[in-house]
Amino acid sequence: MNFLQEEIIKKARVLNEDVLKVDSFLNHQVDPSIMSKIGKSFAEHFKDKAITKVITVETSGIYPALFTAQELGVPLLVCKKSNSFVLSQDYYCTDVFSFTHGNLYHMIASKKYISDDDNFLIIDDFLATGEATKGIVTIIEHTNAKIAGVGICIEKTFQNGRKELNKIGMKNIYSLVKIKSLNNNTLTFE
Amino acid sequence: MNFLQEEIIKKARVLNEDVLKVDSFLNHQVDPSIMSKIGKSFAEHFKDKAITKVITVETSGIYPALFTAQELGVPLLVCKKSNSFVLSQDYYCTDVFSFTHGNLYHMIASKKYISDDDNFLIIDDFLATGEATKGIVTIIEHTNAKIAGVGICIEKTFQNGRKELNKIGMKNIYSLVKIKSLNNNTLTFE
Repeated sequence: MNFLQEEIIKKARVLNEDVLKVDSFLNHQVDPSIMSKIGKSFAEHFKDKAITKVITVETSGIYPALFTAQELGVPLLVCKKSNSFVLSQDYYCTDVFSFTHGNLYHMIASKKYISDDDNFLIIDDFLATGEATKGIVTIIEHTNAKIAGVGICIEKTFQNGRKELNKIGMKNIYSLVKIKSLNNNTLTFE
Repeated sequence: MNFLQEEIIKKARVLNEDVLKVDSFLNHQVDPSIMSKIGKSFAEHFKDKAITKVITVETSGIYPALFTAQELGVPLLVCKKSNSFVLSQDYYCTDVFSFTHGNLYHMIASKKYISDDDNFLIIDDFLATGEATKGIVTIIEHTNAKIAGVGICIEKTFQNGRKELNKIGMKNIYSLVKIKSLNNNTLTFE
């Protein structure tokens, strides 16, 4: 059992069969010492992949992504969520459906910070349906930049995320914690 | 001249007389080494204030706030922006006007993570009109928690923020960089 599983057992709460509440340390109140350990784990796992930039989408992906970028000694690019479609020549933009909020949002990133020479590491807090990660992939695919892999804090393996990412060619997905089920108010790890 | 002023001179761009563009290292693409230095500076300045928690509002305040919390060895609480007013008993909620986006948003924070014993350090990237910081103060004032001070990366002293915060009793405001003017496409520090 790794440190993140231990933290989840101590502090997370099963809200329903789809949602694990981790707002005491991961996405509302944030424990910097746990986030720093997560960043070190991702950096260690991907250290030989010649990553040039870490990328995530606001908001909760930022905490692990910032420490991962620090450890790897590379910049972090944070895709933004916009309510209005951005028709600026300066930005890449794609539509993403959020199952959490039941709405569509526009994910944007400045063209200036994605170059054909980049080799990205995608970091996010959760992998569930994979929509957010697919959005980031779509943003990067506007260019010839490469994607070395995906680092996920908590993967819900009972949802389709990994399968969806595999379909679009994302094979190198590293999850620190895999959750098999949240049924019957019970957390079951893989 | 400190490290942040040097970075601003090297990488920021005056967009107009109100806006300094710092999206290459501070709020879109993020340089973790600069953010870590900013966190160390705030932690050093407030180290004798018995801070129990750092607080900010999403999104750009998160980068300096996360490293400040790490340095101080305390949790970070990130207030969220919501499009709909949250009528849950579990959250404190206040309205904030964003001059940047020209709209009103609802700032929320879970009651669970603000206790009467807390002594908060507020961190944000910019101090301009002070609306966002005032929103955080209002959230905390729902309780008997204390506010030890405010740490700001870049203060635009030609706007009203500091005066507005002084009016509501916030005197301990520490800005790493103060900008006097952005007129005539020229950046002038205090």
